[in-house]
Amino acid sequence: MSPSAVPVSASSLAANDTARTITKTAASITNLQPADALPELNAANLETNFTDAPRSLPHRGSPEEASQSVCTDHMVTCQWTAQTGWQAPKLHAYGPLQLMPTASVLHYATECFEGMKLYRGFDGKLRLFRPKLNTARMLMSATRIALPAFNPEELLKLIVTLCATDGPKWLPKERPGSFLYIRPTMIANDPALGVQKPKQALLYVILCCFPEMDAKPAGMKLLASKEDMVRAWPGGFGFAKVGANYGPTLVCQGEARARGYDQILWLYGKEGQVTEAGASNFFVVWRTPEGKTQLVTAPLSNGGGQLILDGVTRRSVVELVSTRLHDELEIVERKYDIGEVMKAADEGRLLEAFAAGTAFFIAGVGEIAWKERVLKLKVGDDGCGKYAGQVKAWMREIMYGKEDNAWGYVVNETGVPRS
Amino acid sequence: MSPSAVPVSASSLAANDTARTITKTAASITNLQPADALPELNAANLETNFTDAPRSLPHRGSPEEASQSVCTDHMVTCQWTAQTGWQAPKLHAYGPLQLMPTASVLHYATECFEGMKLYRGFDGKLRLFRPKLNTARMLMSATRIALPAFNPEELLKLIVTLCATDGPKWLPKERPGSFLYIRPTMIANDPALGVQKPKQALLYVILCCFPEMDAKPAGMKLLASKEDMVRAWPGGFGFAKVGANYGPTLVCQGEARARGYDQILWLYGKEGQVTEAGASNFFVVWRTPEGKTQLVTAPLSNGGGQLILDGVTRRSVVELVSTRLHDELEIVERKYDIGEVMKAADEGRLLEAFAAGTAFFIAGVGEIAWKERVLKLKVGDDGCGKYAGQVKAWMREIMYGKEDNAWGYVVNETGVPRS
Repeated sequence: MSPSAVPVSASSLAANDTARTITKTAASITNLQPADALPELNAANLETNFTDAPRSLPHRGSPEEASQSVCTDHMVTCQWTAQTGWQAPKLHAYGPLQLMPTASVLHYATECFEGMKLYRGFDGKLRLFRPKLNTARMLMSATRIALPAFNPEELLKLIVTLCATDGPKWLPKERPGSFLYIRPTMIANDPALGVQKPKQALLYVILCCFPEMDAKPAGMKLLASKEDMVRAWPGGFGFAKVGANYGPTLVCQGEARARGYDQILWLYGKEGQVTEAGASNFFVVWRTPEGKTQLVTAPLSNGGGQLILDGVTRRSVVELVSTRLHDELEIVERKYDIGEVMKAADEGRLLEAFAAGTAFFIAGVGEIAWKERVLKLKVGDDGCGKYAGQVKAWMREIMYGKEDNAWGYVVNETGVPRS
Repeated sequence: MSPSAVPVSASSLAANDTARTITKTAASITNLQPADALPELNAANLETNFTDAPRSLPHRGSPEEASQSVCTDHMVTCQWTAQTGWQAPKLHAYGPLQLMPTASVLHYATECFEGMKLYRGFDGKLRLFRPKLNTARMLMSATRIALPAFNPEELLKLIVTLCATDGPKWLPKERPGSFLYIRPTMIANDPALGVQKPKQALLYVILCCFPEMDAKPAGMKLLASKEDMVRAWPGGFGFAKVGANYGPTLVCQGEARARGYDQILWLYGKEGQVTEAGASNFFVVWRTPEGKTQLVTAPLSNGGGQLILDGVTRRSVVELVSTRLHDELEIVERKYDIGEVMKAADEGRLLEAFAAGTAFFIAGVGEIAWKERVLKLKVGDDGCGKYAGQVKAWMREIMYGKEDNAWGYVVNETGVPRS
């Protein structure tokens, strides 16, 4: 199924916040479910059971934090079955899941997730960044991988409640400018080996301590993929945040790391169409032979088969540039290939390149290796080129409450009541 | 990475048993691992702890059996970590696995599996069918999805031990002609969200009660996939038994079932190249315009990017036909497209079509729907055409011990010692 069946891409990225378009589409998907009496996902039914064994925070910059394995005290879980619909969500102590060895997710990759962050602002407030884009995309990913639909507004409420509960302790006000990584996940926990649409699923949300990952002073080093390792293809699922897009890339990524590169630059087809970098969207800034300066990135639609993720950071870059840098930069969303990038570099027209995604935020690129060629790019002290650095600074100001902007979504923190 | 890097396909299928080729290749992969002191997978270290709560067998034909969720009393597990290598395998009571919510497999589809069967022969013996082909393929799949390598002979020993333990009770001698489904599985249980090569993995083997699935009197009804839903592509992983090949097909499969079809006939590319049917390999038998009768199936190599699984049943069909039906049937492994199949049908040259895989065994096809066309095929009382029925009968005789053949691998049953 192409993404056209569950259209998340907004036709116009110029609007101040395209989340409305997405949310509307998502709501209509929910309404398309057969009208039966089964309960929908409903955050109002949340059952809360706080932990009696709270843990301590990892130190900033510690190996524990770098491990990306330390989560906060609580998690939210919600079970769905084809017979009962969505059961009451639960907020409870973070801990292991029990899955039968036959669970669908362990065999057939019936899984999807989202990546978001909770930011501790310099004004003392907790914020999410355009979270409705994530919850709507989670719905799209779930339906692509045969998992149940849900109302994304209810998922957002559950995420907000978890953040309100654990945010005060795990993002202390004394650490403004820090964040937690939010991982909403859905897995099929059907205990049955049949290759079929899952009849049971578990939705869960966890908050994980992450290191800063966007600060590479010399910029990222990218290794272009070869024709024998393709990330996504028309008619596939490269546009959805499903597990099946990640595991198959790890061998290639491991080989790149062993050779000293940070990520793979994913090319597609014989012409070497540029799609994504690692698990992020990818941008270049170049001057055309006619002298225009363009911000270029792969399109959301690709002649019927979308190859890339409709990234929230990608959208935000495009929208910020279109409203704040339109005099300087023309935005071009089109197919482009590695040959064009190399030619621009040869002719002195390539100004910068950067990856954009939630985990790595905006990360400037210092080097791209493709076949026998190595292209070097100058980056500033922040590891970025001029435009990437500017957009990154603007987004950071919104995320951390230095700029009052509708993209920042304030979470009213509650913490855990003292017993 | 194309399969050429981990070549499992034998160049010649005419050999009596190509398992040797695969096993040799698999052994050389194992030898390619860095020579360090970390322990290898070793069945001799198996620790056994029999269950004190044995369960009863589901009745033949019961809903419980049909659920594909009832496993035998025991399972084998073995943990690997990048620091310790393979720990001692354990045979213990079947039961749930504990995974952290951050486990790699739940997010990035770092998982692979095999499908095999344990047969209770009419001579009273338990048999596997060409099991070395499965364990060698499991190694190939594991390395494709960034999971650790292992010696496939050790995996086979673990499978045999589990079968020897639970086979006597779960495949009683009073039920000759029955089977258990064997599911060796490997999952990454790294409790860390980083998108990276897993540092922890769990190998496990379970035995599951399955219904007979190959007996559809009118033959299977297949719906050809449309261009917007593609199972596998060159440079992808369609040749590996990894979860990422299955979940993404379930929406399409669900739609087909809702329309009354059994499985999807997976086409590739603008020309509609025929690849697989459901999760099985696919064959047609046609007469050429020149009057030759050919058995046609998609090739293992596809100009650099193998699209199909190197099925054990597929191989066995090809090898049986090449040794026993070579006077009647010419074997052709090549790219062919749905247009050729339709043309052969139009001209009265299409004799039969069938799917071949472990779970569904050999299942004749009675109908193929493609665009506005519906192609009907005559099948016999067994749901198969003449040649499929013949090959199926021969294979069944080997599996169930009516023919003494090296493909049948006898398991010396031990059962559980009485306490």
